Amino acid sequence: MSTDNTTETAEASSTESKCGASSSDTSTESKCGASASKTEAETSTDTSSSKCGASTTDESSESKCGASSDSSSSSKCGASSSDDEEEVGATVDDFDADPGRLIAVGLGPGQPEGMTTRAKKALADAEHIVGYTTYIDLVPDEITDEADDIYSTPMCGEVSRTEEAIDRALAGNDVAIVGSGDPNVYALAGLALEILESKGETASAVDFEVVPGVPAAQSCGARLGAPLVNDTVSVSLSDHLTPMEEIESRLHAIAPEGFTVAIYNPWSRKRRENFQRCCEILLEHRDEDTPVGIVHGASRDDEATHITDLGTLPELGEEDIIDMTTTIIVGNEDTYVWDDRMVTPRGYETKYDY
Amino acid sequence: MSTDNTTETAEASSTESKCGASSSDTSTESKCGASASKTEAETSTDTSSSKCGASTTDESSESKCGASSDSSSSSKCGASSSDDEEEVGATVDDFDADPGRLIAVGLGPGQPEGMTTRAKKALADAEHIVGYTTYIDLVPDEITDEADDIYSTPMCGEVSRTEEAIDRALAGNDVAIVGSGDPNVYALAGLALEILESKGETASAVDFEVVPGVPAAQSCGARLGAPLVNDTVSVSLSDHLTPMEEIESRLHAIAPEGFTVAIYNPWSRKRRENFQRCCEILLEHRDEDTPVGIVHGASRDDEATHITDLGTLPELGEEDIIDMTTTIIVGNEDTYVWDDRMVTPRGYETKYDY
Repeated sequence: MSTDNTTETAEASSTESKCGASSSDTSTESKCGASASKTEAETSTDTSSSKCGASTTDESSESKCGASSDSSSSSKCGASSSDDEEEVGATVDDFDADPGRLIAVGLGPGQPEGMTTRAKKALADAEHIVGYTTYIDLVPDEITDEADDIYSTPMCGEVSRTEEAIDRALAGNDVAIVGSGDPNVYALAGLALEILESKGETASAVDFEVVPGVPAAQSCGARLGAPLVNDTVSVSLSDHLTPMEEIESRLHAIAPEGFTVAIYNPWSRKRRENFQRCCEILLEHRDEDTPVGIVHGASRDDEATHITDLGTLPELGEEDIIDMTTTIIVGNEDTYVWDDRMVTPRGYETKYDY
Repeated sequence: MSTDNTTETAEASSTESKCGASSSDTSTESKCGASASKTEAETSTDTSSSKCGASTTDESSESKCGASSDSSSSSKCGASSSDDEEEVGATVDDFDADPGRLIAVGLGPGQPEGMTTRAKKALADAEHIVGYTTYIDLVPDEITDEADDIYSTPMCGEVSRTEEAIDRALAGNDVAIVGSGDPNVYALAGLALEILESKGETASAVDFEVVPGVPAAQSCGARLGAPLVNDTVSVSLSDHLTPMEEIESRLHAIAPEGFTVAIYNPWSRKRRENFQRCCEILLEHRDEDTPVGIVHGASRDDEATHITDLGTLPELGEEDIIDMTTTIIVGNEDTYVWDDRMVTPRGYETKYDY
């Protein structure tokens, strides 16, 4: 459920939203009134549905990032200038209905079998399911087919999408907002609470709940063997929302210690230097032969796994296996590779004879 | 699936093992030959089962930790003297059968609905399920009822229990070894690989696989709201397998940085000073009003949640809410409490207007 991923990956599929926020003009379904674009909000006010979200947003991030007025082929989502501020608008006073529920659901690694029973039940109980198109595609058809409405948007727009989910809940719908992994790991659970607060609403009013999922670090660790059984740090290399100097400071702090490291969002075309800088910092403190595991698209159709060492890692930045869907696991000084698995001893060997 | 938990918590329930390693004399079932105690190994050799594990272990940790020759009421498991070395024994040469499979399965937070579909399927497919009694109790009855055998042992003995699982796999059985949370988080996936290696076997020979689960940090984070959406460190305060000076060094390194912190194994009667030392170190670098979330027994019947601040945390060490089933989440400098939730901003507020 990496939000950086939603802003920067180029893998957005083109599944069409059933809701008004679709960038396609053919979207005429009236199930959902909420819309992130003014044109479609106007359309939606003609529907007879009484359980629709309000929309006062003049400019959706989707229109900035998808088929938009931006003539450049690169998305503006990842840009750090203040030009990309999204304005989101409706407040609690805009809604007359008793609020519905809002649940942030983690889908886990990317296949239905990686979802928990609780996550499936939360989605089955939801009237509306909201998410990035790639994540919505991970939800089993038997669940999406039964939902009253699916609101999916292509990459970018996590702020307006999250507000859309909140508006639908405030308008009386039971809403699930979904993402891969866990809602607490570089993901939308916090943003949902921040936007709820900004609207003058409380989390309690929508029975806000988080349904945890298996994070990418665990999905990837499992694929590699047992690299993460001791103290571990997760670090995102995206400087979209965290300044690079802070990321560097964190890497300098943890690299000399015995932590294993799970690196999220290691690479994008726009900031390849972050990956190189990360490698340099780790190599200042750790041996070149420190084992490193690379997992691309864990549990997805394009999954690829590669075990290498820290000295070799920098030259792999340009390889296909490292992109925004990749998680990299860096071992500590005790980690070793055996039978194509990464093993970080827990310390039993110091106490037990086996 | 915290292994420290298995060694030090006092909450072991008394579910009886169906296998020879039960500490109860009434265990006469012949389904499984493997046994961690010499007496029961002798019994088991009389069975007609041809798919049994070898047992050459003279001394089980169960007999040290349960009804044992130790007249003290406190378990010896957590002691760090070399007296507690467990000896484990059989090597690959002791088995004639073609090996079965060995799968380390993470059960997630502690209720069947927190398990993934993949975990349930792995357990349903396993012939033998091996685990600490408390964790076996978390497996749905419809799964345990269908298994050929369940090998559960009370607290302690994770080394001999893991070897038991391996021996059963090497003897030709499809075996699942289970724990709560994720097999990669302070858990047995690494130990299983280490013991396999020590036996002269390979991970490939038993198709060793890890089925990830939702770790305690995520289960607890979800209960608290959204405390972990940025870079995060997990640290265990148990010095059973990691020297306390290393733990202190790690805490000193990460406390001044912007990490949120998930503290595992925060407390036991035998090492209350580790908790106090951790609080002192964090308070050297972070404000007293830094939000702290405490979750005891996430998703279990005795779940309890409390949000406090770092300045208050030290005095809570003696409270019931903090024990070895507790995970503590310490916020970073941006974390705040709103509507009884912990929120760590992801950074959107620096880019978006909401």
